Amino acid sequence: MTGDNSEFSVIDRLFKPLAGLNAEARGLIDDVAVLGAREGYDLVVTTDAMVEGVHFLSTDPLDQVARKLLRVNISDLVAKGADPYGYQLLTAWPKGMAYEGKAAFAAGLRIDQDEFDFDLFGGDTVSTEGPLLLSITAFGHAPVGRALSRAGARVGDRLLVGGFIGDAHLGLRVLRGEFDELSEAHKAHLVQAYRLPQPRDDLAEVVLDHAHASMDVSDGLIADALHMARASEVTLVIDLDRVPTSAAARAAIALGADVTDLITGGDDYQILCTANAAGAEALKAAGLHEIGHCEAGTGEVSVISGGKVIEIEDKGWVHV
Amino acid sequence: MTGDNSEFSVIDRLFKPLAGLNAEARGLIDDVAVLGAREGYDLVVTTDAMVEGVHFLSTDPLDQVARKLLRVNISDLVAKGADPYGYQLLTAWPKGMAYEGKAAFAAGLRIDQDEFDFDLFGGDTVSTEGPLLLSITAFGHAPVGRALSRAGARVGDRLLVGGFIGDAHLGLRVLRGEFDELSEAHKAHLVQAYRLPQPRDDLAEVVLDHAHASMDVSDGLIADALHMARASEVTLVIDLDRVPTSAAARAAIALGADVTDLITGGDDYQILCTANAAGAEALKAAGLHEIGHCEAGTGEVSVISGGKVIEIEDKGWVHV
Repeated sequence: MTGDNSEFSVIDRLFKPLAGLNAEARGLIDDVAVLGAREGYDLVVTTDAMVEGVHFLSTDPLDQVARKLLRVNISDLVAKGADPYGYQLLTAWPKGMAYEGKAAFAAGLRIDQDEFDFDLFGGDTVSTEGPLLLSITAFGHAPVGRALSRAGARVGDRLLVGGFIGDAHLGLRVLRGEFDELSEAHKAHLVQAYRLPQPRDDLAEVVLDHAHASMDVSDGLIADALHMARASEVTLVIDLDRVPTSAAARAAIALGADVTDLITGGDDYQILCTANAAGAEALKAAGLHEIGHCEAGTGEVSVISGGKVIEIEDKGWVHV
Repeated sequence: MTGDNSEFSVIDRLFKPLAGLNAEARGLIDDVAVLGAREGYDLVVTTDAMVEGVHFLSTDPLDQVARKLLRVNISDLVAKGADPYGYQLLTAWPKGMAYEGKAAFAAGLRIDQDEFDFDLFGGDTVSTEGPLLLSITAFGHAPVGRALSRAGARVGDRLLVGGFIGDAHLGLRVLRGEFDELSEAHKAHLVQAYRLPQPRDDLAEVVLDHAHASMDVSDGLIADALHMARASEVTLVIDLDRVPTSAAARAAIALGADVTDLITGGDDYQILCTANAAGAEALKAAGLHEIGHCEAGTGEVSVISGGKVIEIEDKGWVHV
């Protein structure tokens, strides 16, 4: 692990304990990590960064930001059917950032490293005149040649999603003061979904065994379905009425939230995948929800509700 | 590869061509990369970030910044005896950054990807209110169990360096208007060393075969020797009179540059390694320079000149 000179004590005090005794990290006394090949497995690699004011709020507690950072990356891995392994960490601290904030960040990493059996291998620390920026390059293992892609959807496939859509988007709006009439329990549920997504590592194996295409929903259901449709060169049809929503989300809809906001919001970190009919049954038995199907096409997403096609204005997600 | 929605066209237009046809990148249409295990080899991993105003100047051309970013990471790999393989790229663009700048950056990546046979596998693009931040997590292959560490120095070892020390530091000062009396050729040499370091991939194999400890010099010769001394729990003795300097650096010294600035400056990206007497001979035959030796100790660096120990005030490097 490397860092500006002023950062060496931060590395020693905060990050070396996170590397623990894993051989890959070389105790963080070296400036590289060394990953042995696991016979029969490919290494699945993903990079996701979070910027203060864009991907998280300045008021979000830094231990939870750390955990979200890990979870966002772990979510990517498990959606590919990969077993989370470890990560390289980049921290760009704003100049003058207090040690306490860095310590809270490291404490959050510790919690979710243990939770997901996910090790720190190395990284870099720098300082910046700009906002806090955090990035992870995460590694997982998948059986050789089997890591799922968003390019694997086939005409005739069913489209499935791992769990509730829209909670994180609504949680962000709760943090901004909207939906004040919601119950405290519902508000807490939505804020928790925003701050601390739950990677579906419990579903990685069944998805690996049955899905044709798979990814996690980070930019919003519609935007990510569009990525899958384009990569697979098909049309994905989503039945809005079948998209699973939480009781808290339904309460927010009753208070005026637009259901299309839920599917264009982001930060869900649910698995989105396709499978043939038999695979879809196995996936549903594991708890996934069928929300549509896959037709011949050239990279479109079609949303239906009440049996009719509806237009979604904003298919993208413009972060915080 | 992933990115903010506004960045998808940048990914399509600038980064997809950089991923080319390598299987690992999945054409950048997926959100993960997949690296097959190479039998008999470990994967060596390093992360190095560069921040505008800290690690490079706002006036540095972005194609050269891109090339330096790749070279800094490749330098880390080859110092460990690893064969450069490919990388994950994180770009945090300042809001409103012109497309032309991004295109220049991508063009620089293309040049050095080809130069070093180094492929883009994936990454993330985000935007920030802060300065431009660029980070790479780089991968290389080393024979199983043989990747060199900075913790391997043994008492009695010779200390060697791959080439000129101090040029990059002086180049930065030339860019800031110092040493105006230098010849244009000398100024160009020093600025080139700062902007476009030369990773010593030509030395990776001989270093792998003969060195006990190895790393590249990025924070300055003294600071990095100190890292090696601490990791190896030895004392490294550096004979200042034997540290190789370029004709341009000697001209700058004649104009008043302090020789200790050269060894406390940074950005050299030369290999620093130790080896036993026979190994040192092989390394010197390959062009490395013997600059000192390794004594029993507990993590110190001792600098001698004219046979006497000299005190170096500032052992660290406080970037740009």
